[in-house]
Amino acid sequence: MEEVRKGRLSVARGLERLRGFPYEELGFATLDHHRSIRQGIPEVIYCEGKQQDQVVQIVRRMRTSGVDVLATRANPQIYEAVRRIDPRAEYNELARTIVIKAITPRLKTKGHVLILTAGTSDIAVAEEARVTAQLLGSHTSTLYDVGVAGLHRLMDKKSLLEKARVLIVVAGMDGVLASVVGGLVDRPVIAVPTSQGYGASFGGLAALLTMLNSCAAGVAVVNIDNGFGAGCLAHRINIIGTGEI
Amino acid sequence: MEEVRKGRLSVARGLERLRGFPYEELGFATLDHHRSIRQGIPEVIYCEGKQQDQVVQIVRRMRTSGVDVLATRANPQIYEAVRRIDPRAEYNELARTIVIKAITPRLKTKGHVLILTAGTSDIAVAEEARVTAQLLGSHTSTLYDVGVAGLHRLMDKKSLLEKARVLIVVAGMDGVLASVVGGLVDRPVIAVPTSQGYGASFGGLAALLTMLNSCAAGVAVVNIDNGFGAGCLAHRINIIGTGEI
Amino acid sequence: MEEVRKGRLSVARGLERLRGFPYEELGFATLDHHRSIRQGIPEVIYCEGKQQDQVVQIVRRMRTSGVDVLATRANPQIYEAVRRIDPRAEYNELARTIVIKAITPRLKTKGHVLILTAGTSDIAVAEEARVTAQLLGSHTSTLYDVGVAGLHRLMDKKSLLEKARVLIVVAGMDGVLASVVGGLVDRPVIAVPTSQGYGASFGGLAALLTMLNSCAAGVAVVNIDNGFGAGCLAHRINIIGTGEI
Amino acid sequence: MEEVRKGRLSVARGLERLRGFPYEELGFATLDHHRSIRQGIPEVIYCEGKQQDQVVQIVRRMRTSGVDVLATRANPQIYEAVRRIDPRAEYNELARTIVIKAITPRLKTKGHVLILTAGTSDIAVAEEARVTAQLLGSHTSTLYDVGVAGLHRLMDKKSLLEKARVLIVVAGMDGVLASVVGGLVDRPVIAVPTSQGYGASFGGLAALLTMLNSCAAGVAVVNIDNGFGAGCLAHRINIIGTGEI
Amino acid sequence: MEEVRKGRLSVARGLERLRGFPYEELGFATLDHHRSIRQGIPEVIYCEGKQQDQVVQIVRRMRTSGVDVLATRANPQIYEAVRRIDPRAEYNELARTIVIKAITPRLKTKGHVLILTAGTSDIAVAEEARVTAQLLGSHTSTLYDVGVAGLHRLMDKKSLLEKARVLIVVAGMDGVLASVVGGLVDRPVIAVPTSQGYGASFGGLAALLTMLNSCAAGVAVVNIDNGFGAGCLAHRINIIGTGEI
Amino acid sequence: MEEVRKGRLSVARGLERLRGFPYEELGFATLDHHRSIRQGIPEVIYCEGKQQDQVVQIVRRMRTSGVDVLATRANPQIYEAVRRIDPRAEYNELARTIVIKAITPRLKTKGHVLILTAGTSDIAVAEEARVTAQLLGSHTSTLYDVGVAGLHRLMDKKSLLEKARVLIVVAGMDGVLASVVGGLVDRPVIAVPTSQGYGASFGGLAALLTMLNSCAAGVAVVNIDNGFGAGCLAHRINIIGTGEI
Amino acid sequence: MEEVRKGRLSVARGLERLRGFPYEELGFATLDHHRSIRQGIPEVIYCEGKQQDQVVQIVRRMRTSGVDVLATRANPQIYEAVRRIDPRAEYNELARTIVIKAITPRLKTKGHVLILTAGTSDIAVAEEARVTAQLLGSHTSTLYDVGVAGLHRLMDKKSLLEKARVLIVVAGMDGVLASVVGGLVDRPVIAVPTSQGYGASFGGLAALLTMLNSCAAGVAVVNIDNGFGAGCLAHRINIIGTGEI
Amino acid sequence: MEEVRKGRLSVARGLERLRGFPYEELGFATLDHHRSIRQGIPEVIYCEGKQQDQVVQIVRRMRTSGVDVLATRANPQIYEAVRRIDPRAEYNELARTIVIKAITPRLKTKGHVLILTAGTSDIAVAEEARVTAQLLGSHTSTLYDVGVAGLHRLMDKKSLLEKARVLIVVAGMDGVLASVVGGLVDRPVIAVPTSQGYGASFGGLAALLTMLNSCAAGVAVVNIDNGFGAGCLAHRINIIGTGEI
Repeated sequence: MEEVRKGRLSVARGLERLRGFPYEELGFATLDHHRSIRQGIPEVIYCEGKQQDQVVQIVRRMRTSGVDVLATRANPQIYEAVRRIDPRAEYNELARTIVIKAITPRLKTKGHVLILTAGTSDIAVAEEARVTAQLLGSHTSTLYDVGVAGLHRLMDKKSLLEKARVLIVVAGMDGVLASVVGGLVDRPVIAVPTSQGYGASFGGLAALLTMLNSCAAGVAVVNIDNGFGAGCLAHRINIIGTGEI
Repeated sequence: MEEVRKGRLSVARGLERLRGFPYEELGFATLDHHRSIRQGIPEVIYCEGKQQDQVVQIVRRMRTSGVDVLATRANPQIYEAVRRIDPRAEYNELARTIVIKAITPRLKTKGHVLILTAGTSDIAVAEEARVTAQLLGSHTSTLYDVGVAGLHRLMDKKSLLEKARVLIVVAGMDGVLASVVGGLVDRPVIAVPTSQGYGASFGGLAALLTMLNSCAAGVAVVNIDNGFGAGCLAHRINIIGTGEI
Repeated sequence: MEEVRKGRLSVARGLERLRGFPYEELGFATLDHHRSIRQGIPEVIYCEGKQQDQVVQIVRRMRTSGVDVLATRANPQIYEAVRRIDPRAEYNELARTIVIKAITPRLKTKGHVLILTAGTSDIAVAEEARVTAQLLGSHTSTLYDVGVAGLHRLMDKKSLLEKARVLIVVAGMDGVLASVVGGLVDRPVIAVPTSQGYGASFGGLAALLTMLNSCAAGVAVVNIDNGFGAGCLAHRINIIGTGEI
Repeated sequence: MEEVRKGRLSVARGLERLRGFPYEELGFATLDHHRSIRQGIPEVIYCEGKQQDQVVQIVRRMRTSGVDVLATRANPQIYEAVRRIDPRAEYNELARTIVIKAITPRLKTKGHVLILTAGTSDIAVAEEARVTAQLLGSHTSTLYDVGVAGLHRLMDKKSLLEKARVLIVVAGMDGVLASVVGGLVDRPVIAVPTSQGYGASFGGLAALLTMLNSCAAGVAVVNIDNGFGAGCLAHRINIIGTGEI
Repeated sequence: MEEVRKGRLSVARGLERLRGFPYEELGFATLDHHRSIRQGIPEVIYCEGKQQDQVVQIVRRMRTSGVDVLATRANPQIYEAVRRIDPRAEYNELARTIVIKAITPRLKTKGHVLILTAGTSDIAVAEEARVTAQLLGSHTSTLYDVGVAGLHRLMDKKSLLEKARVLIVVAGMDGVLASVVGGLVDRPVIAVPTSQGYGASFGGLAALLTMLNSCAAGVAVVNIDNGFGAGCLAHRINIIGTGEI
Repeated sequence: MEEVRKGRLSVARGLERLRGFPYEELGFATLDHHRSIRQGIPEVIYCEGKQQDQVVQIVRRMRTSGVDVLATRANPQIYEAVRRIDPRAEYNELARTIVIKAITPRLKTKGHVLILTAGTSDIAVAEEARVTAQLLGSHTSTLYDVGVAGLHRLMDKKSLLEKARVLIVVAGMDGVLASVVGGLVDRPVIAVPTSQGYGASFGGLAALLTMLNSCAAGVAVVNIDNGFGAGCLAHRINIIGTGEI
Repeated sequence: MEEVRKGRLSVARGLERLRGFPYEELGFATLDHHRSIRQGIPEVIYCEGKQQDQVVQIVRRMRTSGVDVLATRANPQIYEAVRRIDPRAEYNELARTIVIKAITPRLKTKGHVLILTAGTSDIAVAEEARVTAQLLGSHTSTLYDVGVAGLHRLMDKKSLLEKARVLIVVAGMDGVLASVVGGLVDRPVIAVPTSQGYGASFGGLAALLTMLNSCAAGVAVVNIDNGFGAGCLAHRINIIGTGEI
Repeated sequence: MEEVRKGRLSVARGLERLRGFPYEELGFATLDHHRSIRQGIPEVIYCEGKQQDQVVQIVRRMRTSGVDVLATRANPQIYEAVRRIDPRAEYNELARTIVIKAITPRLKTKGHVLILTAGTSDIAVAEEARVTAQLLGSHTSTLYDVGVAGLHRLMDKKSLLEKARVLIVVAGMDGVLASVVGGLVDRPVIAVPTSQGYGASFGGLAALLTMLNSCAAGVAVVNIDNGFGAGCLAHRINIIGTGEI
């Protein structure tokens, strides 16, 4: 603050120091090492639209900072390149995620997140959500391929539904599962439309609109195929009441 | 055919006579009296976009032909005008239909049509379907306000669902009820999206897309708010196996 | 029920047993063996978005249950893999379907389903509908490439149209054929828009809207390219009045 | 040109004089008196979005120039105001047009324009087309309410269709009539979608897309409800081969 | 269960009794009195599309059951009618809500819900959210008109943001506020797009898409103008860690 | 007719014979040999969505009938296959058309069709229009890459514009050229939007809407990229006043 | 800063003081008095969606601060209410703006802004732009109703176009004028689509897309009907090179 | 002009000569060599949709005229072909641009253009803008990957923002950065939506709508991914006040 008062440091920069927001410029990317503390989640590398080299460079810098590394939408080639610089890197083929866990284990939440899918084709997005929530510290469980065409498959698991603190419902086509689950539980439901489907599903638009218009209270929606976003949000909700929060 | 051969009658007109398709020109409308026989339904007067005078004139001519009269989307003013020329005219305020029953009663179907709505606001469209199917000769029953937010209300009526030969599901907002019903029965389900809703329901588009993308087999969709079309189709299906058909 | 009363079995599970809904969990899929009885159709494997291994595993389990196997949107590679585990598997190249018929033949319907296409490019979807309806037990016949640009080709077949109990009209581009057929017959017409076309056909949207807005009564619409859905629905309608139903 | 060379007149203005394009500035409108010669049609006053005073002022100036006056989308109030300054003004209530015929009669075309509508509600737009084509000098005839739900009504008029040089097909809802007419004749067909309809007609979008995707060759489309544009274009085609053109 | 075993009661009905889901049929509505227990929220009366009489009847029945009454989208006329049968009814003019509090006070949550709006015109939707969350038992606070055009207004309130357990961001036009708030906090953010705006806001679609595509993790979206849904979800999240949950 | 009267021939078939509409069934296609007479254009083979074998079979049958053959959207492989059965086949690489001219030359029109493009990328569609109009018997001329960004390039050709009887304007991106040309001439203008462009051109939607909303009178629109349709329509207009028509 | 160091003032608040961003909270609005300095424009009151009382209160506070007052989309009733508290308030009926000029006159720019409209109906939006740019200190001139249907009207004014530093083109329907003007000048062109039009103009969407896809370089687009935004931007550009900037 | 008067030269051609608009016809392209003078920018070769040969031919002619060559959306193959005819050709791999600088250096502007991106994936479009603005004569600087998820990264650079004369903001996904930057500066902001994103970003539509609806004054939008357009416009604004302008 002294430096600020004396004019040796601009107010904006001084403020940054006080807040302690370190970030690092790579030219093509500006890393935000502090986000892990401020936001509860590490900076995540969304691989689509990035060159392999760029991903590798970002991973290298993040490892130096000792934070967890999560890369989403990563193809096997990118994974190979990342594993070469850190053999601890784990690849989830379905979720297309790369995870490198930092040394200090995170605080585990008490409650758990239940992830459901309507069909088999929705599992990839569901796995992205699961990997994300787990890395952040949530316990997770899954219930896949329980779409409403065979409603009894879902009804049979009602006790499982009631035990979860947060539910993530992943569904393409008509996206109906979110409304049905939303009507059965009194917990927050995060609906993830997927681009699975054909014809008038319009790349997930049909499921998205179904979920936004859900008559069941307590349902919120994230972007089409956004498993990562759903996992983040689920953990943010799940962590409430854990430890100091 | 002789007249045709001798050239006294154009082939097209001759063909028409053979087929016996009588129709009548009013200048602004070309009445198709034969449709009742050919299509199983009387010509229907869709009142929106027509002037009151035009509706009245069409009704007058139809009565002369002794066919059933059905006018849809009729406001009370039009009803008053129609009742003045025929006191037998019945008005259904919710469905906004005018019905004048012809003398000869129609053959009644054996099976019956069950009409469900997700909410109270969908009842107007459901009633248009009910009035139409009844006039054509189908038995009907109704189950209103059984949306999936309270799924047990629907589950409790499962035997009712199983007794129907055809089901009409009328729903706005997320339109989820059609998928759920479609997953419970093995009969044809006609889904009618309604324009009820707000925000991203986009005038019924959300419900329409949900229904078109239904994962349940055996669900077909008609236009938004098209209770009349659903009633027609339901009767056409229901009449199969009745009498000579 | 005793077990339920004594608390050894949850009510939900007891109910399931009473209802006798057997299903089987594969981790990535929850098979619903009872659907064949409850819904009149076997569980169908929609191959798009599923890995080849997943399809093969599902087929293997279904064969154990003795139900008919129908896989749609199957490419030749999947077919090869399926044939290796069951040489009875039949592949329809146009329809992209795999069928394995179970031992007991199904009850055949009295009426038959007529399937029409507007153009040559719509035949793939039409064949999916035909294979489905046939497997379920319906007699079928076809009338391909009779679009309204050459209306006399259709008019000439009018007696064929009138003999069918249910009609499926498959059309891309402007989707006009459904309306024209709908105006000629008094039977249920199932309209299937296809994604064939270019420019402002927007992947089948134009045909879909045409069909939804059809002025002909008795026309219902299924999803774009949904030959399977049309075949199912047609059979559900066709079977009415057959045997006990 | 001399003045141009001497610099007393800008080249652009000189060019204008040579071309003889007179126009007149009213502040809120720039009248193009020459258009009648250059384009074959008088400047037309589209009344929507204009204040009554503005319309009256434009009419006043046009009358001075001795050109035909055509005002479209005019409500009765505007008509009253126009009639006060010129009692010859004629109002067509259905078409919502005001016409003031200039003294010199136009050259009449040999061929004639046939205008068809699918339904009664489409007549307003058809009348706007008819008034426009007639004012420009075309003979016209009409065939209203001949939609494909009663296809025989249209087939019966086939000779009428074949006699026209140009056909205008006005249709809302599914817009199917344009394709059917386009498949029956070898003359240019101008398709006008109307905003009549409900639900998934989306204000005429469904009919527009149907018409754009028409499989019949020789069909062109104008904007939704654009009777005026259709009338203009029909006349431009019809006049070919008449007199000097 | 005995009655079930003896066949005097269908399994479905028996199950309902065990589960104790009381509901009540009014013909046009099926009241779900149990929802308050099962879902944590009372059945809510969405007034749009319902007749005044229907609303009054539903209120009358709900009062008998002793649950809280919440009616949304209620105009002053409906309020007057409701107040006549229960003078405790409170009307929030901005939120257009009617609230009748039941005798037993609800358990109050520890944390609180912060509701922000980007502009003055978004306050109506924000108030609907506030009324809902409060009725359910959450503490709430508000921060209105802090859109990003004046970012310092928001930055100044950063400590307020950090104190909330859940944040609701209500914004029309470009909907940018949700992303900015989402980037500043580590708590769940519920984004509510509003239909406020003009031109290419398309009734809230622009804000909806902005929010769905938010790069900030931890943002979920509800339907356009759905203040009620946001309030419900916020409370469901907020209540976690309170008392027994 | 005798056979009809005696019942040996159905009325419909008899009518067909009278009308002399020969057509031929290939199973996957129903050829309409009479179309050349009835519609003024030969049956055209749209190659997309058809297998190479199907195209070759159709060509083989059409050659037998002695009509002109036009195949559009043909890739070089299809051309090679067609040339093998008829070495007269000509391929236009830009237009992707195959033409086999029948022996008898067609009546040539007096007027000519002028085809303009806004950019170089629009030429493929323009060539499809040119090939079509020429095959049908129209004289054609072209003016390519004269978009409004360099308006003087167009203005310089004004006399060329005025000499044409019909104009085809092919443009992608903003589609503005159609409006500008429409404001300069008094002849029919056929506007063809192309899918050229990027971003918010949405596959030609932007150009399509521009053209439909053109303020210039006398502009009609065909489907996106529909060079064939534009060529057909242009010829139908151009032939008016030629010979007997 | 001292207070900050001693903890008596939060860092964020201290920062605000240093930056000197005064703002004022009215409960329903947070006034940003400093915006005039920071952004070059005063805070503007967008009246739609605000109650009359709210507008009046905001005006009252702004007057106290001595800044210029600009209210847009104001109806005459709001104007009356504002004039009652400040008789200097000026109302522009076409633009629907209220202006109260502060005492100190603004620095006038050297260059000027030329505002063009395609039609008479676009003038309201153009006037909103003109009032805005003038209040901010720009000279303006206008050229109304010069759409491309009469291109010579525009060509004649070419010198006027070349004299302007910035051009605002306001157009509905096909929005073509922006592209044409963009091709004639080498200055920045701000395109404002308007919601004027009908049919497939879809409330200004057609014009918006045309403008976004303009092939002319140097054209930027603002929201539909956003005259205010265009006026602001034009002034921001125009002021470059004036005085100190 | 003499030749004009004597009729040896048409007025239009004479006018062109006076204006001195040289252009050159290549058959598939009409080069506008004068544009560099009239518009301040050279004719630009948009490579998509053009064949390699066409690009090479256009480059060859442009070099003869001594103007700067700029080719956008060029792949490496095209670059190789161009370099073969001119080794000075420079390729920017990210921007996909080819530049050949003419001998005479351009006048450099005083101010500079700042280009920002929200993410790493937006850099390609930003580089296209940078290359364009630089070639035209503007100084540029860049600030990449400063999206609002880490708002402090942007805030820290506030002085950089204030130094620029024009700002270009390139952003995909939610496009929020444009609004935030627009609220921080008093200079013109050009917003470029990119097609980066997934799900409901709909190929850049979400970012486009966000930017069009920006509440920040002084923000204008160009087409999705249109880096070239943004660079052009930025230079046109930046050059104001430089030298004679």
